[in-house]
Amino acid sequence: MKYAIVLAAGRGTRMRTGKNKVMHELLHKPTIGHLVSNLEKIKIDQTVVVTGYDSESVEAYLKDRVSYAYQDEQIGTGDAVSKVTQLADKKGSTLLVFGDTGLLQPEMIQTIFDKHEGHDLTITTAISKEPGSESRVIRDNQGMVSKVVNHRDLSDVELKSVNEVNLGVYCFDNELLFEYLPKIEATGPRMDLNIIDLVRIMREDGRQVQALRVSDSKQFTAIADRHRMASAQRWLQDKINEGHMDKGVTILDPNTTFIGPDVKIQEDTTIYPNNHIYGVTSIKNNVTIYPGCWIEDGVIGENTEIHSSKISQSRVGKNSTVGPNAHLRLNSKVGQNVRIGNYVELKNSSVASGSSCAHLTYLGDAEIGKNVNIGCGVVTANYDGSKKHKTIIGDNVFVGSNSSLIAPLKIGANAKIAAGSTIVDDVGSYDLAIARTRQEVKKEYVKKKKEKEV
Amino acid sequence: MKYAIVLAAGRGTRMRTGKNKVMHELLHKPTIGHLVSNLEKIKIDQTVVVTGYDSESVEAYLKDRVSYAYQDEQIGTGDAVSKVTQLADKKGSTLLVFGDTGLLQPEMIQTIFDKHEGHDLTITTAISKEPGSESRVIRDNQGMVSKVVNHRDLSDVELKSVNEVNLGVYCFDNELLFEYLPKIEATGPRMDLNIIDLVRIMREDGRQVQALRVSDSKQFTAIADRHRMASAQRWLQDKINEGHMDKGVTILDPNTTFIGPDVKIQEDTTIYPNNHIYGVTSIKNNVTIYPGCWIEDGVIGENTEIHSSKISQSRVGKNSTVGPNAHLRLNSKVGQNVRIGNYVELKNSSVASGSSCAHLTYLGDAEIGKNVNIGCGVVTANYDGSKKHKTIIGDNVFVGSNSSLIAPLKIGANAKIAAGSTIVDDVGSYDLAIARTRQEVKKEYVKKKKEKEV
Amino acid sequence: MKYAIVLAAGRGTRMRTGKNKVMHELLHKPTIGHLVSNLEKIKIDQTVVVTGYDSESVEAYLKDRVSYAYQDEQIGTGDAVSKVTQLADKKGSTLLVFGDTGLLQPEMIQTIFDKHEGHDLTITTAISKEPGSESRVIRDNQGMVSKVVNHRDLSDVELKSVNEVNLGVYCFDNELLFEYLPKIEATGPRMDLNIIDLVRIMREDGRQVQALRVSDSKQFTAIADRHRMASAQRWLQDKINEGHMDKGVTILDPNTTFIGPDVKIQEDTTIYPNNHIYGVTSIKNNVTIYPGCWIEDGVIGENTEIHSSKISQSRVGKNSTVGPNAHLRLNSKVGQNVRIGNYVELKNSSVASGSSCAHLTYLGDAEIGKNVNIGCGVVTANYDGSKKHKTIIGDNVFVGSNSSLIAPLKIGANAKIAAGSTIVDDVGSYDLAIARTRQEVKKEYVKKKKEKEV
Repeated sequence: MKYAIVLAAGRGTRMRTGKNKVMHELLHKPTIGHLVSNLEKIKIDQTVVVTGYDSESVEAYLKDRVSYAYQDEQIGTGDAVSKVTQLADKKGSTLLVFGDTGLLQPEMIQTIFDKHEGHDLTITTAISKEPGSESRVIRDNQGMVSKVVNHRDLSDVELKSVNEVNLGVYCFDNELLFEYLPKIEATGPRMDLNIIDLVRIMREDGRQVQALRVSDSKQFTAIADRHRMASAQRWLQDKINEGHMDKGVTILDPNTTFIGPDVKIQEDTTIYPNNHIYGVTSIKNNVTIYPGCWIEDGVIGENTEIHSSKISQSRVGKNSTVGPNAHLRLNSKVGQNVRIGNYVELKNSSVASGSSCAHLTYLGDAEIGKNVNIGCGVVTANYDGSKKHKTIIGDNVFVGSNSSLIAPLKIGANAKIAAGSTIVDDVGSYDLAIARTRQEVKKEYVKKKKEKEV
Repeated sequence: MKYAIVLAAGRGTRMRTGKNKVMHELLHKPTIGHLVSNLEKIKIDQTVVVTGYDSESVEAYLKDRVSYAYQDEQIGTGDAVSKVTQLADKKGSTLLVFGDTGLLQPEMIQTIFDKHEGHDLTITTAISKEPGSESRVIRDNQGMVSKVVNHRDLSDVELKSVNEVNLGVYCFDNELLFEYLPKIEATGPRMDLNIIDLVRIMREDGRQVQALRVSDSKQFTAIADRHRMASAQRWLQDKINEGHMDKGVTILDPNTTFIGPDVKIQEDTTIYPNNHIYGVTSIKNNVTIYPGCWIEDGVIGENTEIHSSKISQSRVGKNSTVGPNAHLRLNSKVGQNVRIGNYVELKNSSVASGSSCAHLTYLGDAEIGKNVNIGCGVVTANYDGSKKHKTIIGDNVFVGSNSSLIAPLKIGANAKIAAGSTIVDDVGSYDLAIARTRQEVKKEYVKKKKEKEV
Repeated sequence: MKYAIVLAAGRGTRMRTGKNKVMHELLHKPTIGHLVSNLEKIKIDQTVVVTGYDSESVEAYLKDRVSYAYQDEQIGTGDAVSKVTQLADKKGSTLLVFGDTGLLQPEMIQTIFDKHEGHDLTITTAISKEPGSESRVIRDNQGMVSKVVNHRDLSDVELKSVNEVNLGVYCFDNELLFEYLPKIEATGPRMDLNIIDLVRIMREDGRQVQALRVSDSKQFTAIADRHRMASAQRWLQDKINEGHMDKGVTILDPNTTFIGPDVKIQEDTTIYPNNHIYGVTSIKNNVTIYPGCWIEDGVIGENTEIHSSKISQSRVGKNSTVGPNAHLRLNSKVGQNVRIGNYVELKNSSVASGSSCAHLTYLGDAEIGKNVNIGCGVVTANYDGSKKHKTIIGDNVFVGSNSSLIAPLKIGANAKIAAGSTIVDDVGSYDLAIARTRQEVKKEYVKKKKEKEV
């Protein structure tokens, strides 16, 4: 059996934040979300997240993807693990990881579990050119790990000579973890219990303790301040973008293309600079995303073009064009061969195939049929001050410019709405509805008025 | 006489694409477009493009700027050249280049022709620190090129010691090229005919074969996968931006400023980050392009300001302001001292000098005179469901807010349109046109309704 | 007493500009603005700017923050200083600096004054790896500065061996500066008077001349061409962004986040890539700035979200949302818990707390009360062709979609405006105002018309 304990109880003082640091986002996804998704990609039998500071937001976000333990006082990693009572007597291996280790990749997690086989405790380490304030790994004459020491407690000789640092991700035999946990002694002003002491304790007790030295240590970064957030996002961004480029996606400027880890993109799609594609988004074949888009939880059909638009929780069919400056939101659905033009907002609305809605329009809670032409400036008045109502428009309807459609409203197929009309009653199929005043002209009114003014 | 043969028949498997790889764009211009433009900048008497896979798109793009040969089966560069029958018996020098060599600069092309003088075959080479899978240039004891060898066919000694690589651009005596072509022997599983074998063949035959070693080898990059596309665009972007900066253009962040090779910009213009300026665009003196613009095939007059707007196939006069979030397209023309404000779209429309169209407006197929004020929310209803019609507005007209102008429509000079009117008939000079209902008030309706509801 | 003389008379030929080079902007603030702000941050008793070319724009920008001297002919720095008659007989220390030294930080200025204590002339120098065309500092056997020499006048030995360059910022004993000024001899074809000659002259006269060697020489950059502008902005941008990150602001991509030096941002605010925050702007706690914003001289309240919008000279309260594609300008004020949605422009308007203005709206010269709902497509017609008028809307008003509000206009609290109405007269509290035509339907008009056409 494989378990994971994720430590997410601390506030993160270096982050200077009023939120739990693991809830800060990289590529529009919380750090702990990256970590838990990566744990989910390999088979872990149970993952327990230890929460504490701002536990509500962590639990509200992760919901029942994990189980929880609660650490009320932040007095060390050893104390945090002792709260994980649900794992206390189970057989298996337990990965212990900090919740801000959002870059740790599934392949690396798998490797740690694999290499741990036959050991009681595995720690991860790397050679660092500038070990600075990192904890150091002290090895004995045979090259075996004997302990991990905080940089403050190192001798001068060790400070100079030891450049192997502790990366902070551990794998334990689960039963031994809970057996040895009570042997940690409280230290420091707050009497902290530090899990890392188990290296020395278990080693002295003859247990199999190994240090797994890795070369790609960047993915072990503790995202503990704003500078590391920026560099962590960049690392992940480069990795994700290179993956898409390998698979035949054009990313013209990887430095200003931001794609979340749960986005799928098919071959021959082109992504211009300065785009943000986040959430669970799927982009099909041969799509062009022009600069300045934000697409979140969207589906974009093949051969479609999106120009500087915002799309969230919405779908666009194939061979369509959207934007510039369109906004699709809240479960909107755009069909095939549709044109959604500039300054057009769709909220919880659908536009079926072949229709056009080209300029300055708001469709809210509307269902638009096929081959409909929505003129410029058309507005669905879906809100009456207390409730939202639906507007349903049949196939082949022509809605003239600057019309107001007062919902609830049904317009039958093939009907026509005259420009500038305010439509309050349902319109039948093939009917023409008009609601406007006859034009009057006051002859030479402007000239006479000017003459008066002089 | 100078000739060029451009090889563009292959699909580009490393690109993982359903299109011809030479049609992929850098700075919004196909790779082969860059190459052919650069060939056009020096005097080449005839350029032949060998097409094959997806030949239609290549020929549709290049049209009659070049002549074409067709290679039906992709069995090597030697076979491709043999299709170029139009050059077969001509005297002169022939540059042979792959269609994905989009970075090759005119100065380099000229240098290759110049240095070729007096030789039968010139190949281009560079010293590479990491030659990896590149073909290597093997020289004899006198330092003369004897052959070019694929990295798979190199001896271990050669693999370690030879770091001179073939850059893949050649210059031939044209008559000798076609004379020797039949001597290439088919090799490999597909019995390919490789032009590079001519180095050895011609050399053995006592011909003058030279290797022209260059230092700036980046411009010989074969843009054959998506990673190279990104790095190629960046190289070209830096080169173009530095050229503009030399000439007195402010580019505050060259990394996020994207300017195509056919754009002209005059002194003292300022370009903010995150702008795209493409196609045949001309930007005059002292213009300010604020962030977030896309300008394609545009002309922008001096002292004009553009704010986060899209302008394509359109012109803006001097001392005008456009945007934020304006959209000018399809042959629109904006005069001097004009204000085009936010959420305004012009399609195939003109706005003469001194006029203002400041908010939430669509002008389609419209001609607007001088000193006209187009109010907010004005819409030209140019489409009646089957045809587009024109709206013509004379000088000094005042069009009130939220008016709908139903085309075809003429409004005479100095006329006034009352706000909220739908105008269907022509309006004479100095006339006031109004088409709206008198306001009614239902006294305390809201209070009474609420009281009822309680 | 501490004085500063800022030399800003020259045109800047390397900049290739028709403007004074010190008026070119970094992070949307003129170079000389950066310098003068930095001088203001330490206590300087009097700052004199020497203007010449395009003096009007420099003086119009700096106004009475400094006093001015005028150099009519650009014949050297010595001549420029001689125009500063207002300082001629004063006791104290004088910093002499070029107006294009916009990166020079207050701490460095303070250090120069401090280190100058007890000396007659202090020059600033640095060791340069590529001194190229920089002036070199020549020291005598004791290591004391003896003169500063233009690179053209260096011996071959000096060119090779001397890598200490003059950074161009000086500090003088003020009385000695003006005493020695007449001793400079005119040189060169234009008979220039070069202040740097005072190093040799004062030294020969036994004065205390020192060279203050600094390690961070980037901040002494003369922003004298467009390449240096770009690199100078980047240096300043990095410095400013890192300062905000230290203080708990999330800046996900520092490379594409542009924040001016006079912007204040509080903890836990998140700034997405591609944002521009300039002028005197204050952003409170926990704000999210999504990509594509331009905020200039704005105030954004805590917990507020801004999506790709332009905000200038305007304030937004807490817990509000703005955008995408909104535009707030000219002293607009948005209260708490307000929603300003897409394609909404506010000009010189206020929207009180709890109100919503969600789509396609222009509010100009309007005062909107609390809990007001402004429907989609509502327009204040604030301009009658000659004057601007106000629209005042009371609390709890509901304005239906596509209404036109013809100013001057007052709408009492709790009133309702029917959708599609053009409102020209004031509306009382709790009244319902309606101004639209009854809908007519022409039964099967579309079908009959089609049948006719066949």
